[in-house]
Amino acid sequence: MSIETFFNPRSVAIIGASHTPGKIGYVVFTNFLSGLFKGKVYPVNKNTESILGNKVYESVLEVPGSIDLAVIVIPTKFAQGTLEECVKKGIKSVIVITSGFSEMGEEGKGLEGELKKAIRATKTRVIGPNCLGVYDSSSQVDTLFLGRKRCGRPKEGNIAFFSQSGAVGSTILDWLSEEDIGMSKFISYGNGMDIDESDLIEYLGNDIKTKVITAYIEGLKGTGKKFMNVCKRVSRLKPIIILKAGKTESGTKAVSSHTGSLAGSGRIYSAAFKQAGVIEADTWQDLFDYARAFSTQPIPKGDRVVIITDGGGFGVLATDEADRSKLQLPEPSESLKERMRHVMPPYAILHNPIDLTGDSDAERYRVSIEECLKSGEYDGVVAITLFQVPTLEETVVDDLIGLKKKYNKPILACAAGGEYSNRLSDRLTKGGIPVYSTPEGAVKAMKILVNYGKR
Amino acid sequence: MSIETFFNPRSVAIIGASHTPGKIGYVVFTNFLSGLFKGKVYPVNKNTESILGNKVYESVLEVPGSIDLAVIVIPTKFAQGTLEECVKKGIKSVIVITSGFSEMGEEGKGLEGELKKAIRATKTRVIGPNCLGVYDSSSQVDTLFLGRKRCGRPKEGNIAFFSQSGAVGSTILDWLSEEDIGMSKFISYGNGMDIDESDLIEYLGNDIKTKVITAYIEGLKGTGKKFMNVCKRVSRLKPIIILKAGKTESGTKAVSSHTGSLAGSGRIYSAAFKQAGVIEADTWQDLFDYARAFSTQPIPKGDRVVIITDGGGFGVLATDEADRSKLQLPEPSESLKERMRHVMPPYAILHNPIDLTGDSDAERYRVSIEECLKSGEYDGVVAITLFQVPTLEETVVDDLIGLKKKYNKPILACAAGGEYSNRLSDRLTKGGIPVYSTPEGAVKAMKILVNYGKR
Repeated sequence: MSIETFFNPRSVAIIGASHTPGKIGYVVFTNFLSGLFKGKVYPVNKNTESILGNKVYESVLEVPGSIDLAVIVIPTKFAQGTLEECVKKGIKSVIVITSGFSEMGEEGKGLEGELKKAIRATKTRVIGPNCLGVYDSSSQVDTLFLGRKRCGRPKEGNIAFFSQSGAVGSTILDWLSEEDIGMSKFISYGNGMDIDESDLIEYLGNDIKTKVITAYIEGLKGTGKKFMNVCKRVSRLKPIIILKAGKTESGTKAVSSHTGSLAGSGRIYSAAFKQAGVIEADTWQDLFDYARAFSTQPIPKGDRVVIITDGGGFGVLATDEADRSKLQLPEPSESLKERMRHVMPPYAILHNPIDLTGDSDAERYRVSIEECLKSGEYDGVVAITLFQVPTLEETVVDDLIGLKKKYNKPILACAAGGEYSNRLSDRLTKGGIPVYSTPEGAVKAMKILVNYGKR
Repeated sequence: MSIETFFNPRSVAIIGASHTPGKIGYVVFTNFLSGLFKGKVYPVNKNTESILGNKVYESVLEVPGSIDLAVIVIPTKFAQGTLEECVKKGIKSVIVITSGFSEMGEEGKGLEGELKKAIRATKTRVIGPNCLGVYDSSSQVDTLFLGRKRCGRPKEGNIAFFSQSGAVGSTILDWLSEEDIGMSKFISYGNGMDIDESDLIEYLGNDIKTKVITAYIEGLKGTGKKFMNVCKRVSRLKPIIILKAGKTESGTKAVSSHTGSLAGSGRIYSAAFKQAGVIEADTWQDLFDYARAFSTQPIPKGDRVVIITDGGGFGVLATDEADRSKLQLPEPSESLKERMRHVMPPYAILHNPIDLTGDSDAERYRVSIEECLKSGEYDGVVAITLFQVPTLEETVVDDLIGLKKKYNKPILACAAGGEYSNRLSDRLTKGGIPVYSTPEGAVKAMKILVNYGKR
């Protein structure tokens, strides 16, 4: 039972397509009309004959050709009948955006039970109900009922993200588009009545466009056993990073009001994640700090990291974080120091962190990073490049990008500031070196890379 | 002994002014020529007669009028003699930018000792050596040798920031300017041979333009006793927030290489900060997350906070953070719930967090926040406004700003995303409500406000 047709359908039916701008059925239908999606699109609505010049069908059963994906955006009470028609039509993938099910108490739970019955022992799989559905940056399947003006869509990339919460999902999607971080697939799976976390992880594990799997969950929709088995397997192929909300006592109560999930104890989840090889993120910024590192860097072969900085203070903050994270910062050997010394002034500090000091030029970065990587003494570099330093040439950007390619070892950068600094940071990012605005962020991400390498 | 003339001098001498673009003496001198600074400026240099059409003096002793502030940017070996001339001239404030002193080992320590002798028992006070000096957003005293193209200067505001590290200081200054966060005064005090943290805190405590004092330090330059006494006194007048680097064992070692400070144990510093009423920040982003809250919000009169959200997931993450921070999230009373219910759909969740759900409009925000504040049941609001929600009108921004003014209780917002979201967030910020990109950030800042209110 593949779920590939959710992401790469040749034909899509929008059930509940509308000609009223602003309505969900309008936004979703017009997403598919933008010309980005290359397959066939069939609007379905019992009450209208034509939308924006497109023939409208009364039911999926009337559509002449086959349908790979149906998107249901009609009122709750019609959902079950419509889903039954989808099954009858032989549609393999159905996204039920409609809400009013198990998230709405006992009555809703009953309705969701009926929906489940409709697909039991069939080949039809469901994402939802009560969800935003799918955004695929490559096929341009886009069932999000949020206009692109209000909620941007990220460019193509290799990070997949699925979210139990639609609002968290769309906020992060919008943020990723602003930050120019690429994404392979986004899935808001809502109540997860059929397709759950484990199904998605299994699928994304095999997806060649996905290098990193990220997720926001409040509680498991599927069973714990299935989740553990899938994660243990997939986490050996690619990193799985999860932000689990509802880890405290108060948070758990809030979850039960929100998605009705059993949030469970944070400690139980953390232990399970660890056992299954899942990387746990504490905040959504950590989630993407880690994801950006995996998305762009090779996995380090060891745990010996060097911090190189032109700002001593940021070097100290990075060192504090390395200490807290238990990240190794071995001293450079005497012979390595010797090989760096010829480009350094006497006051440069050749320990670890290596402090190139506030009058550094690009040459000091180039030589120190190259010698550290060539020496075999280090498995990764955290390069703090405070671009405000007046003597630092812009060429440092190309040097770093070149060294990362030449030695195929992870380099993470740290920089912050205004227009000038942001422009250089963007160039580093485009060249495959992610830039973190805090030294702590860069060091934590490096530690996560190192930990993954150890497994 | 006032240090006011560092910030509001009527006349400034730049000793070591240069006509070579890129040189420190050029950047600092031209900062004062830009027309922003309203006082008199005298370039001093033994080797040239005119710079950019300005008469150059051989020594401060030759300058006809009196000089309030001297900035020394000449080579190390000439610093002592020049400082002696400043004393002779009766200059009250001298910034020694020149480096090569106690940060450079034993010989440098000796030189710094000589500098100290030069001002002993005189009315001359020194900032530095080995520093960037001062940026005052109001008087436009600007001794930073970093061009504005590479390092922006923040607009006028009420946050003061002083930093032991020049590179950390300039990076943060540049970032503040990009984020449009206002600043009253910035001081990079380097080796702190005369004016130390305690002097600066004492001065900023009395400065009417400063509402919040923030600092980056690696170790105290003055004595612990003086620091404790000053902080105990000033922290009752306005919040003092400090980021202390070198708190771990490895970080402490890195500090001793960097600024030669005795970093001491992180735990000792934390205990001392607590006793003196100093707020400790763990990262520089925390530092300004807290500062932005104090800068714009009234101090809450109690510890009862309500979280209001249109994204259930962000509500859960906020609740988790409240639990960890031990922030009170009391339930609304039945009568308060009743007064909110008329604008809410049946599925809105009237607990704490209040979940207006993903089809919220501005009205639900307006009524819930107003009723919560009017009821007297809450002392502060964390408003999570995910602007991606398609039904949320832009008017929510003005509603929030109006309510904050009307009830004079703190409101902190949380939002993240792309262009549309950032535009509305900017409007909130300009209206006096700081916006945090993570729910954790907003909740932590609210907790810090509450804690300060309790003292």
